[in-house]
Amino acid sequence: MKNKRPAMEPVSDLTAGRLSVYLRCLNVLEAGGVKTTSSKALAAQFHLNAAQIRKDLAYFGEFGVRGVGYYVSELKTHLRAILGLDRPVRVAILGAGNLGLALADYQGFQEEGFAIIGLFDTAAHKVGGKSRQGVLIHDLAEFQRCAHAGQIDIAVVAVPADNAQQVVDMAVNCGVRAILNFSPGALKVGQGIKLKNVDLTVSLESLSFFLARGGGDVPDA
Amino acid sequence: MKNKRPAMEPVSDLTAGRLSVYLRCLNVLEAGGVKTTSSKALAAQFHLNAAQIRKDLAYFGEFGVRGVGYYVSELKTHLRAILGLDRPVRVAILGAGNLGLALADYQGFQEEGFAIIGLFDTAAHKVGGKSRQGVLIHDLAEFQRCAHAGQIDIAVVAVPADNAQQVVDMAVNCGVRAILNFSPGALKVGQGIKLKNVDLTVSLESLSFFLARGGGDVPDA
Repeated sequence: MKNKRPAMEPVSDLTAGRLSVYLRCLNVLEAGGVKTTSSKALAAQFHLNAAQIRKDLAYFGEFGVRGVGYYVSELKTHLRAILGLDRPVRVAILGAGNLGLALADYQGFQEEGFAIIGLFDTAAHKVGGKSRQGVLIHDLAEFQRCAHAGQIDIAVVAVPADNAQQVVDMAVNCGVRAILNFSPGALKVGQGIKLKNVDLTVSLESLSFFLARGGGDVPDA
Repeated sequence: MKNKRPAMEPVSDLTAGRLSVYLRCLNVLEAGGVKTTSSKALAAQFHLNAAQIRKDLAYFGEFGVRGVGYYVSELKTHLRAILGLDRPVRVAILGAGNLGLALADYQGFQEEGFAIIGLFDTAAHKVGGKSRQGVLIHDLAEFQRCAHAGQIDIAVVAVPADNAQQVVDMAVNCGVRAILNFSPGALKVGQGIKLKNVDLTVSLESLSFFLARGGGDVPDA
């Protein structure tokens, strides 16, 4: 674990996930011309918990204004800074199959300011090609060069499950410290490296759970 | 809210998500030949909260055995039943772009027993084609026929953001009650319909949050 800041208490992934959801909500409000909001209004409109919103935000400072609530654009700026989005975050996508190509063009990433450095693959016939939106496919050797040069903040792993651990090890060995993995298997990384698994099955199961229970209304997560 | 069963209290999406994660963990244990486990062992191995595991499971019954803990395969069977996976769950994927094709072949879905009915698209040149694993691409009219006949449990929306609301409305009008949406915009559905949004940006932001805080270790969600 390098550069640990002792003054900062660890904050769970769950908190980070909620802050990220709040930012999404504020984007919606801003797009609709809304200037101010409150924990209560946010909770009502987006099916969130008002007390939880206040608690999560209070952890990072005093953002509310008495009698007003929150200024949407100001709170957005704060949340973006807390989430590390106030500086460029450079993302490399490993694997230029359907999933990699889809992620390279995923609208949400660009909207939030993530910089997609490129797609990287070992298949010679793919190298030199592009995603539909024009993200270039490079050879994996180019990824290693960029990573060693400290030009990659996050590696997104979109290779088949059988190759995933090998690709993760390679990225970590090149100095990448944050990895978003889409392969369904269980991967291992050493201390000080952050591995986030996106398991799409969990989302599908929350729907089968809903159907199995006869479709009773449940609050959104 | 239709068909509400008064005897069943609503269970949040968060609980369903955790049950789904427990099932994933049990799959890993079973694959490794492990026969019994406990909330403490599960928590330690998979970075979960033991008290939360006991609380979540207790809500659905008495699964532990004194002096043993949980039988892995028995608990798996129970969780699969709770999550509605003990009967076939039929999934249609709307949109045969890169994302739709990637989802059609996503290993995790098949492993958990979801039946991918097919891909559906309006582009004539795609209809009749197949994903790499052989999932057929049908015309959207065929989706409407299947949905009206009650043959689709979950519709996965993998179309561009601009078309997403229209596609969701169409699916709901054909009788589909559970929707998994991958488009980044905010969609609306009526009461009694369950819409689950997968926002991939949230995962990426939890990594930029980690990097922004200097890479301090945080527990996995």
